[in-house]
Amino acid sequence: MKTFNIAIVGLGNIGLEVYKNLNINKNIIQKRTGFKLNILKVSAKNLKKKRNIKIPKNLWEKNPLSLAKNKKIDIIVELVGGSSGIAKKIVFQSIINKKHVVTANKSLISKYGDRLSVLAEKKSVNLLFEAAVGGGIPIIKSIKQGLIANKIFHVYGILNGTTNFILSQMEEKEISFRAALAEAKKKGYAEANPASDINGIDSAEKISILSSICFGCKILNKNFLVEGIKNIGLDDINFAKELDLKIKLLAISEKIGNSIKQRVHPCLIPVKMDISNINGVTNAIVVDGKPIGRTIYEGEGAGKGPTSSAVISDISSIMVGNDDFSFGHSPTTKKKLNIFNFNNHECKYYIRLLVKDKKGVLSKLTTVFAKNNVSIRNLIQKPKHNLSNIVIITHFTKEKNIKKILKNLNSNKENFKDVIIIRIRDEQKL
Amino acid sequence: MKTFNIAIVGLGNIGLEVYKNLNINKNIIQKRTGFKLNILKVSAKNLKKKRNIKIPKNLWEKNPLSLAKNKKIDIIVELVGGSSGIAKKIVFQSIINKKHVVTANKSLISKYGDRLSVLAEKKSVNLLFEAAVGGGIPIIKSIKQGLIANKIFHVYGILNGTTNFILSQMEEKEISFRAALAEAKKKGYAEANPASDINGIDSAEKISILSSICFGCKILNKNFLVEGIKNIGLDDINFAKELDLKIKLLAISEKIGNSIKQRVHPCLIPVKMDISNINGVTNAIVVDGKPIGRTIYEGEGAGKGPTSSAVISDISSIMVGNDDFSFGHSPTTKKKLNIFNFNNHECKYYIRLLVKDKKGVLSKLTTVFAKNNVSIRNLIQKPKHNLSNIVIITHFTKEKNIKKILKNLNSNKENFKDVIIIRIRDEQKL
Repeated sequence: MKTFNIAIVGLGNIGLEVYKNLNINKNIIQKRTGFKLNILKVSAKNLKKKRNIKIPKNLWEKNPLSLAKNKKIDIIVELVGGSSGIAKKIVFQSIINKKHVVTANKSLISKYGDRLSVLAEKKSVNLLFEAAVGGGIPIIKSIKQGLIANKIFHVYGILNGTTNFILSQMEEKEISFRAALAEAKKKGYAEANPASDINGIDSAEKISILSSICFGCKILNKNFLVEGIKNIGLDDINFAKELDLKIKLLAISEKIGNSIKQRVHPCLIPVKMDISNINGVTNAIVVDGKPIGRTIYEGEGAGKGPTSSAVISDISSIMVGNDDFSFGHSPTTKKKLNIFNFNNHECKYYIRLLVKDKKGVLSKLTTVFAKNNVSIRNLIQKPKHNLSNIVIITHFTKEKNIKKILKNLNSNKENFKDVIIIRIRDEQKL
Repeated sequence: MKTFNIAIVGLGNIGLEVYKNLNINKNIIQKRTGFKLNILKVSAKNLKKKRNIKIPKNLWEKNPLSLAKNKKIDIIVELVGGSSGIAKKIVFQSIINKKHVVTANKSLISKYGDRLSVLAEKKSVNLLFEAAVGGGIPIIKSIKQGLIANKIFHVYGILNGTTNFILSQMEEKEISFRAALAEAKKKGYAEANPASDINGIDSAEKISILSSICFGCKILNKNFLVEGIKNIGLDDINFAKELDLKIKLLAISEKIGNSIKQRVHPCLIPVKMDISNINGVTNAIVVDGKPIGRTIYEGEGAGKGPTSSAVISDISSIMVGNDDFSFGHSPTTKKKLNIFNFNNHECKYYIRLLVKDKKGVLSKLTTVFAKNNVSIRNLIQKPKHNLSNIVIITHFTKEKNIKKILKNLNSNKENFKDVIIIRIRDEQKL
């Protein structure tokens, strides 16, 4: 029975949990894979940090880069994070030195996944990253293996637990974005600097990885629409409720001909929609393919337990030798596809703004819409302090028209304030 | 590039769809697996049946059992169905003759899965059956590979699309069981003889397979509680609505110490519960494990598209060589566990019955409960024709007490008629 020697680089919450669970479930994994595993080395930036787990001294390695060259090591588990610095170096160096790599690093994979997977194929090693998307949910394995017989044309979901928690809290407790963010920090669901969650970047990295796997294309990691949730107000949550809608930060990708319509932005979705009741830090991913139809995958999107489960599933896949293609295709067959020009996107739009409660303003406002060929479906006006809070729902219209409207409204700060738009997602129209 | 030769036995709806999709998606599968596949032979009971797909004459084999001995064939795809007859023969013979087998046959696997997997390991071939549970949902692969690092202690779900469609229709359209069943037959969701769906047997076979995979135990395919939905009336659906509950046919399995609490029966579940909004023919499976927590998998539970997706994913797994253990463990390490004595099961119970609307009956009824130490939490009485329709919700109590009550009530047909019990599922108490 072959033994696989493993090195874990990075011993934060996740790294420690992987270390712990590899030890606790050693026998189970051995029974299930038919192979032995052995943690040969660990490495971390701060050797003296207090950790609740005792790690034998002989396991520690001061210089993580030396692990990439250690001939005894079969699998490097990179849990440092970030798309540069030590994480990048150790992953590249390990593959160059013919070591398998498991990582939870979405930034690194979104940025260098194409290069890394080509390199891995050349060196005949595996590069796996199940934990980079959807926490513990085995979404990457499911798409690559379970849905292998399908042409996938649409994938979308709630890929960021922090923002979903914030939006759920705003709705449930009727609190502001700021208060909900504070709550998320208190519970450990948001980092001290939550920018990449809040701004949608985390979701964008994840959907770029999923698109590449689903559509067999090179990773499209820039020049697509990425909007976060920091402009969403409690007013929007309340208007949504009135309209039988919910606000969710969605990451969406569709294959349309030879281009990919990939984007991250808040959406208003019908309360009856598949994933509208996914609350808190839960993630959910919806995959549409032929011939399978729709499948949905839900679970905790982050946290040490789920993440370590995903990391160890990758380690096991390498041991069993069952997951040769990082993105489900030989990297040499991955096509370069284009990003869909989002100006041509069509949907209904929700636009909310504050206007001065004076004669003729409403007429000025509706004129802006008429001038830009956008017809209005609903209009709700409510007083707010000495102003009016106005919500407009448009009929189906193009993004480029809405952009013009936004420009018009924002150039008239005298009358129109705090303009926010949210796209309404209507799956009937997909 | 190695070519795998495949034979498909059984060309009903599913078999034809597998044939079709293997041809349509040949290139995709080749790109994704790195191997070629070739349908070498097909076989079906009725050679003359009109089929919409043209199959070259040289592919047809009259005697399916000869395929099990055909040296050129690598993988036998059994889509005949049933736990005896030709399906059983072809699967056993194929494995004995060192051929990999893919099947969608839940009855066969539930009955002979242990023997077959031991045989497959001995002969160094794979026996895979993703399509046997949850239609296209890659639930078996997800548990075996994605959740490989976990100790799973609980799995449950809606595993039968036919009954879920019937219950959904009863609720949505306020129609009787009979009318909903007729609707299901009309739409092709129920077979001419739907007994195994309606009686819960189909769900029972599926949960017995899932238990074995989740808990690493031998298949427990008898002596556990299996109840169907044929006694559920529109009255129950309506009472459930009033109580903010839904009725679902659930298959549930938990590991409790060294025994398995496995069962299939209708449940009343809170409308807020994870899978209460799974309607129509959709299946959903919930898996709880450590360290991952809860993950949920949803998709169409039957039909030719999803089923063929699952069958082809198994064929691909065999080509890639990544799925050696049918049940996720070496069959020699599978333990024999016991079935939990369901008399000791505890939950709240819903009991509905018709009583004569005469003096003293209610007192007689409540005395039966008191005598058997079951305390009543709610009681609703409504007139129905010249009788009274009574619903009682108990506090937590044991199954054995409820059995006594049932016996008491059924022995007094004079006063108590059409007694039905439904277990209330309360996950808080798990």
